[in-house]
Amino acid sequence: MSGPRVLVVAATHGNERNAPWLLEGWRRDPTVLASQGLSLALEIGNPAAYAANTRYLDRDLNRSFVPELLVDTSRSEREVGRARELLALHGPEGQQPAAVVLDLHSTTSAMGNSLVVYGRRPEDLALAAGIQGRLGLPIYLHEADAAQTGFLVERWPCGLVIEVGPVPQGVIDPTICRQTQLGLEGALAVIAEAVRGVLLLPQSLVVHRHRGSVDVPREADGSPAACLDRRRQGCDWQPIQPGDPLFRARNGRSLGYEPPPHLAGEPACPLFINEAAYGEKGIALSLTTREVWPVEAAWGEALTALLQRGAPL
Amino acid sequence: MSGPRVLVVAATHGNERNAPWLLEGWRRDPTVLASQGLSLALEIGNPAAYAANTRYLDRDLNRSFVPELLVDTSRSEREVGRARELLALHGPEGQQPAAVVLDLHSTTSAMGNSLVVYGRRPEDLALAAGIQGRLGLPIYLHEADAAQTGFLVERWPCGLVIEVGPVPQGVIDPTICRQTQLGLEGALAVIAEAVRGVLLLPQSLVVHRHRGSVDVPREADGSPAACLDRRRQGCDWQPIQPGDPLFRARNGRSLGYEPPPHLAGEPACPLFINEAAYGEKGIALSLTTREVWPVEAAWGEALTALLQRGAPL
Repeated sequence: MSGPRVLVVAATHGNERNAPWLLEGWRRDPTVLASQGLSLALEIGNPAAYAANTRYLDRDLNRSFVPELLVDTSRSEREVGRARELLALHGPEGQQPAAVVLDLHSTTSAMGNSLVVYGRRPEDLALAAGIQGRLGLPIYLHEADAAQTGFLVERWPCGLVIEVGPVPQGVIDPTICRQTQLGLEGALAVIAEAVRGVLLLPQSLVVHRHRGSVDVPREADGSPAACLDRRRQGCDWQPIQPGDPLFRARNGRSLGYEPPPHLAGEPACPLFINEAAYGEKGIALSLTTREVWPVEAAWGEALTALLQRGAPL
Repeated sequence: MSGPRVLVVAATHGNERNAPWLLEGWRRDPTVLASQGLSLALEIGNPAAYAANTRYLDRDLNRSFVPELLVDTSRSEREVGRARELLALHGPEGQQPAAVVLDLHSTTSAMGNSLVVYGRRPEDLALAAGIQGRLGLPIYLHEADAAQTGFLVERWPCGLVIEVGPVPQGVIDPTICRQTQLGLEGALAVIAEAVRGVLLLPQSLVVHRHRGSVDVPREADGSPAACLDRRRQGCDWQPIQPGDPLFRARNGRSLGYEPPPHLAGEPACPLFINEAAYGEKGIALSLTTREVWPVEAAWGEALTALLQRGAPL
């Protein structure tokens, strides 16, 4: 095994059980994962929360990779400590630095097998385009959301989230496991191509770009005043038009979708519909717009350069 | 409103969010529930766990109604205190006693809209038969399981669980809400019939009787060594034959169903398949056998006598 190291993280959220169960299997028997000869570092993201089968203990680990937070010595939440530890181990300046991180998540939403990319770093876009070219996975491009920052993958030179659902928190589901492993193996195959200098990317990239979030209507005390309309539950990635049924009030009245002003006239696609963990964040769904971008040669060159920069990095 | 009081409990498990969300709506506007003119007591079972969006804090409330535990003054777990409180409020000797309790649960398993009955009290069997006659709901008869005791409904003269799934913990799902309300309204309609002395029961009762539990194969350290086979996931209530695929080992090998000796030669139906909360109890599924019982006149007489015994009880 040589070349750059790839960090694979599971259970960044401790109650997402499929990826860590797989990861423990890859540790026991590395031959059951098609790793393309790459040097992998396998990490349970939040071991304490995983042991407790809860998303996090003190704060969401996947919102804790905020540079100012990491250097603030007055902050002692357990997840901040774990973020520092992961960076000390495998960060760009760490003991065994990794060039790329693949962070394996699951969701209660019907996201299918999908990718989440944070911002527009060329290396990330190349990796995502390569996976989409191989497997067809849809991509949620998360950017320009000041309320949601500090994601793990942002602290590595390249990285993305593989997000699979629907699956309840705390449940190991055979289909979710299979999709997770397929997504990871697809990503590793693209990385191996770049390492060998034979990266093949599609001509275009389809992204669903984050444009805002919608909360459920709430009572004066903050509790939900409506639930999702059953015609929208489970319909992630499907376009929504103004007036389409979105929520259902307690008296049975249907509440239609009203686009926010900046999305008026644009067809939107809701994602992460009714994700269990986002209720506390005031998010019933995220609004995205579907965009088709030409794949730029510079993206693949950037990823190839990163991965050929040294062995190991 | 007169006649016996009916206790309706939601969020006995704090992360089962559908029933308590409905219940808060019934408190705000009682007209949205078809209560048949019955006097209802609406209670959040475990308010502290509900606020924390977790199944329980110190111990499972729905295993805490063990008579010896309730009188043991050395036991101070929060759920034991809440069990005592619910009994002091609405128990048979309580301030505002209820004759019947309906305990509303949800599950990550594909149980559909179903009933759980604990043991063979005639009043419970009459109520379950009446609901099954109206709505066709399947019934899980839980009995003879020394490892699972202390259920809430057992401490009232009559009571059962309405169990709806699949739904992730922490998620309010429109279909699950609708099924929960339908099940409750069906139960209230049967109770109202008995109060009026016009209880109409079907000729036979179909139950799925608990016969044992099966755990997932485990590693030496106690972690799961296999996941459910995808051909069994979501197939609650469907018969299983010896050799049918049940689990899948990490190396991909399928592990067939091996009936326990006392079920050899009997067709079994797995229930509560892959319920998130049962992993910690070592239960991957419960094995039941389907039985058709003639409905006894004495059951309906017992329920009618209980409900006509006084107003309120």
